[in-house]
Amino acid sequence: MSKARQGNFFEDFKLGQVIAHAAPRTVTSGDVSLYTAIYGPRFAVQSSDEFARAIGYARAPVDDFLVFHVVFGKTVPDISLNAIANLGYASCRFLQPVYPGDTLSAVSEVIGLKENSNRKTGVVYVRSRGVNQDGQDVLEYVRWVMVRKRGEKAEAPGDHVPQLPAAIDPAMLGTACPLLQVHNYDFAQAGSRHRYEDYAAGERIDHVDGMTVEEAEHQLATRLYQNTARVHFNQFAEAQGRFGRRLIYGGHVISLARALSFNGLANAFHVAGINGGRHVAPLFAGDTVFAWSEVVAKAELPARSDVGALRLRTLATKDRPCSDFPGQSGKDYDPAVILDLDYWTLVPR
Amino acid sequence: MSKARQGNFFEDFKLGQVIAHAAPRTVTSGDVSLYTAIYGPRFAVQSSDEFARAIGYARAPVDDFLVFHVVFGKTVPDISLNAIANLGYASCRFLQPVYPGDTLSAVSEVIGLKENSNRKTGVVYVRSRGVNQDGQDVLEYVRWVMVRKRGEKAEAPGDHVPQLPAAIDPAMLGTACPLLQVHNYDFAQAGSRHRYEDYAAGERIDHVDGMTVEEAEHQLATRLYQNTARVHFNQFAEAQGRFGRRLIYGGHVISLARALSFNGLANAFHVAGINGGRHVAPLFAGDTVFAWSEVVAKAELPARSDVGALRLRTLATKDRPCSDFPGQSGKDYDPAVILDLDYWTLVPR
Amino acid sequence: MSKARQGNFFEDFKLGQVIAHAAPRTVTSGDVSLYTAIYGPRFAVQSSDEFARAIGYARAPVDDFLVFHVVFGKTVPDISLNAIANLGYASCRFLQPVYPGDTLSAVSEVIGLKENSNRKTGVVYVRSRGVNQDGQDVLEYVRWVMVRKRGEKAEAPGDHVPQLPAAIDPAMLGTACPLLQVHNYDFAQAGSRHRYEDYAAGERIDHVDGMTVEEAEHQLATRLYQNTARVHFNQFAEAQGRFGRRLIYGGHVISLARALSFNGLANAFHVAGINGGRHVAPLFAGDTVFAWSEVVAKAELPARSDVGALRLRTLATKDRPCSDFPGQSGKDYDPAVILDLDYWTLVPR
Repeated sequence: MSKARQGNFFEDFKLGQVIAHAAPRTVTSGDVSLYTAIYGPRFAVQSSDEFARAIGYARAPVDDFLVFHVVFGKTVPDISLNAIANLGYASCRFLQPVYPGDTLSAVSEVIGLKENSNRKTGVVYVRSRGVNQDGQDVLEYVRWVMVRKRGEKAEAPGDHVPQLPAAIDPAMLGTACPLLQVHNYDFAQAGSRHRYEDYAAGERIDHVDGMTVEEAEHQLATRLYQNTARVHFNQFAEAQGRFGRRLIYGGHVISLARALSFNGLANAFHVAGINGGRHVAPLFAGDTVFAWSEVVAKAELPARSDVGALRLRTLATKDRPCSDFPGQSGKDYDPAVILDLDYWTLVPR
Repeated sequence: MSKARQGNFFEDFKLGQVIAHAAPRTVTSGDVSLYTAIYGPRFAVQSSDEFARAIGYARAPVDDFLVFHVVFGKTVPDISLNAIANLGYASCRFLQPVYPGDTLSAVSEVIGLKENSNRKTGVVYVRSRGVNQDGQDVLEYVRWVMVRKRGEKAEAPGDHVPQLPAAIDPAMLGTACPLLQVHNYDFAQAGSRHRYEDYAAGERIDHVDGMTVEEAEHQLATRLYQNTARVHFNQFAEAQGRFGRRLIYGGHVISLARALSFNGLANAFHVAGINGGRHVAPLFAGDTVFAWSEVVAKAELPARSDVGALRLRTLATKDRPCSDFPGQSGKDYDPAVILDLDYWTLVPR
Repeated sequence: MSKARQGNFFEDFKLGQVIAHAAPRTVTSGDVSLYTAIYGPRFAVQSSDEFARAIGYARAPVDDFLVFHVVFGKTVPDISLNAIANLGYASCRFLQPVYPGDTLSAVSEVIGLKENSNRKTGVVYVRSRGVNQDGQDVLEYVRWVMVRKRGEKAEAPGDHVPQLPAAIDPAMLGTACPLLQVHNYDFAQAGSRHRYEDYAAGERIDHVDGMTVEEAEHQLATRLYQNTARVHFNQFAEAQGRFGRRLIYGGHVISLARALSFNGLANAFHVAGINGGRHVAPLFAGDTVFAWSEVVAKAELPARSDVGALRLRTLATKDRPCSDFPGQSGKDYDPAVILDLDYWTLVPR
C-alpha cells in the first residue's frame, strides 16, 4: 500500500475519536507580513507593536483569522480531503492571544456522525482546537462537513448529531484580549473615533471598497496556511470539475471581508468568537469582493469595563457594491452574496 | 451618518491643518522579504546584516522606498482618496535609518491650497512626515494632489501656493546614513568596483533588464503598504473607468526602476532625498518595465569624506528597452516613458 | 564603457578562476514565510521551532532548497547570464544547517571549460559554495552550463572536463543535520509513521496532488532568490523568444516537486545531497505540476543510528497525474515529464 495518503472517508471516523493533526507551525512576523500583503488589514492593534503594548498586549498579536486559517489548514488532510461540502461552523472562540514566534498545533475530536440517506456520504462533526507551545488552547471551534464514503456498502460508523448553540454566550468571550488600558488607546491613530457606545443594534455599515482577487493571491494564502484542499490549487483537475475553475478557499473570503470592514469598524479590533458562517456561493479569481455589516447585538462582558462586544453580521458579495445592503429575503439571498458571517468583535468602551 | 469614511474633499482641508494618519505600522523582516520578492533589489547594505554592520549600520536598514511607501500609504485615506491626480513631489528627505522592528506613524500638514478655475477641483499641498517609535522623523516630503470638491458651490478653503525648491541642497542630506567605515565596504560583494569618483556628471547608464508586472504583484505590494487608493484594487469599478483596468501605484514603478538600477549603480546604496518625480504615463499589468539613469550632478557632503552624493535622473519606460536612452525632447516625452524621477543617492568615496 | 554589466561570455572564464559573487544575503523568517506561501511545504522540522528543538536543532532550519536557491541566485550574474542551457548538477551537499538570521555569500571556482565544435558556445563547469557569516560552508555543488561566446574567433580559454561522480558517497552526507534525539521525534505530528526501515529500494510513491503555477508566483520566488536570469521576468523579450513566454526557473519546479513529495515522504525531512538533476522540459505559467518518487537505494550513515539515507529519484510532470509513474523508457521520457531529480534524503530510524 502506498505511503501517500488519500484522506479519510466517512466510514473511517469514529465517535469520540481524537486526531492529532500534522504539522506544528511556528507563526512568524513573515506570516503577518504576507497576511497584510494579501488582504490589506489596517487594525492598529495588529499593525503596531507600540500601539498594542501601550494598551496591554505583549506586542502586536497575530490577526485572529490568520490564527484560524493556520489551525483550520492543519485539520484539512485528516477531516475534509474527501469532503463534498463545508456545511457550517459554530462555537468558535479565540482563547489566548497568539504572537509571532508561537508554535501552533491542532487537535480534533469527532463529536457527531450522520450518514446521509443516499448512503454515499455522511456528515462529520468535529470540535477542533489550536494549541500553543505551552499547551494552552488558543482557538476552539466546531465544524461539520459532508464527506464521501469509500464504499456505499460500508457500515455507518455512528449516528449522533450534536446540539450546537446558535450564538456564543458573550460571557464566554474575551480571554484572548488582555484587560486593556483604554486611556492609552489612541483613537486618531486607530483611524476612527467610534467606541462601543457609538454603535447601535440594527445599524448597517457599507464598507465601500472593492477588492479584486487573483489566482496567485489565493494560492499564496492557502499554501501559507498549509491547507491542502485540492480544489484550490489544481487547475488541471478543476477544469473537469463542476465549475471548470479553481475554487477559492472560503477563509480567503472571510479575511477579505474582515479587512474591508476596517472602513466603518476600525475599532472592532478583535474577533472574539464566530457564531456561525455560511459560504453562500463560490468565489473565483477575477471577481471583486465587496462587504457590508449589520450590528446584530451588543453585550457587556462580565467584570470588564474596558471593552464591549458587538455581534456583527458581515455579508460579502462579488461584483456588486453594497451601498443598498444586499442580503437575504426569507431563505433567498441576493444572487451576488457569497458570505454570511455571524461573529462577535470587541470594541473599546 | 455612516461610520465608513469616504475621504476628504477639497473644501474639507484648511491651511495649517495637521492630520495624524492611521494606523501605526511596525515594519518587520517579513516586509523586507516581500519587498525583495516583489522587486528583486540587490543592494548589499539592505540585503545583508553583516555587510551593513561592517560599515557602521546597526544592521541592514529597510529599503528607503519601502519606508517611503509605508509612510505614503498612511496618508492616502486622508489626503488623496478623492484625488484625480498626483501632481508632484518635492523636498523628500530620508532623515533616520529604519530597521526591522521600528514602528512608523505619519503626520501631514496642509501647506498650500489652490482652487482650480472650474471650481470642481483644487490642489492640496501637504508636508508629510514619517515618525518612528522614538518620535524621530525618519522621512519628510511635500506632495501635491488635485482633489475633487464635494460641491461646486463650496467656498474654497484657502488660497496659497507654497514655494518649493527645484532640488534639495546636498548639505541637508545624509542623516539617515551613519558615518561609514568605507575600508570595510567590500566592493566585490557589493557587485561593482565603482566609487563616487568613478561617476561623471552627464554619464548615462542603461540598466539593461526588463521586468514584467502582474496584477497580483502590484496588489500585494500596495496592500503591504496599507495604501487604500481604490484604483489599484477594484477591477469591477475600473472596468468602467478611464482605462478599463486597474492602475498600478506609481510607487511600484519607482521601486521597480530602483531595483533595475542596481545594474550600473550597485554602490548608490542609499536614496538620501528625492528632488521631484513625475508619473509621465500609467503602467498596467502585463507591461514590461525598463529603466536608464543619467548622472545629473555630483556633490560632496559637508564634513563627510566617506560618501558623496550623486544626483540621478532615472527614467522608466514600458515595453521599450533603454539602450538609446529614450527621454524628453522639449516638453514631450518619448511615448514609452512612464516615470521621470530626480533624486540624490549616496555612494562610497 | 557603461557601468551596467552584461554578464560573462565563454572566453571570459579561466580555469581555476575564483569568483566572489554579489551580494551577501541575510535569510530571515520572512523568506521562510514566502517559501511556505509559494510552495506549501509541510515538513515538521522546517515548520516548527518546537519540533526542531525537541530533536536537536537550534530552531527550525531553513528549507534546504531555499538555501540552494539563494546561493544559486548569487552565481547567476557571473556564471549564467549568457547561458543557453543549464546542462547539469552534481555533487551537491548540504554541509551546515542554516537558520533565519544567517547571512549567506557565494563563491565559485571554474573547474572545467570545453568549447563546442561550432565555436559559438562552450561549456563552463563551476564548483560553487555557499558560505555563512562564520565562514563555514553551508552548501557545495558543481554545475555546468553552455555559455555563448562574445565572438566566434575568440580563443577558447581552456580545455578541461572534470570527472564527476554519478552519486555522492553516503558517508559524506549529513553534516547539516545534528545528531537527532529520535525518541523526541513525534511521528504523528510529522504526518507519517514511516521510518527509514519502512522504505524499500524500488518502492514507488505517487504524490497524488497537483499544483498549478502562476506568473506572479514564480517571479516572486525567483526575485526572492535575487536570481537575475532574464528569461524568467521579461515578457517583452520572451515574446520574441523560442517559447514566446517567460520560462520558469528550474529550481521552482524542484521546490514544487519537493513540497508535493511530503505526501508519502513526510519524514524524509532533510535533503542531504543532490546527485544530479535534469530539467527535461520547460514549465510555463498555467501548467499544473505533479510528482512521483522512487526509492533508488538506502544507506546507513557511518557512526549514526538516528537517521538513515534514502536515495530518491523524483520525477515531476506537467498536466499529467502520476498514478502510473510516467518516466523514462530507454533515453526517451514520457512527454509530460519536466524534471528528473536524483538526491539523498535523511529519514529517522
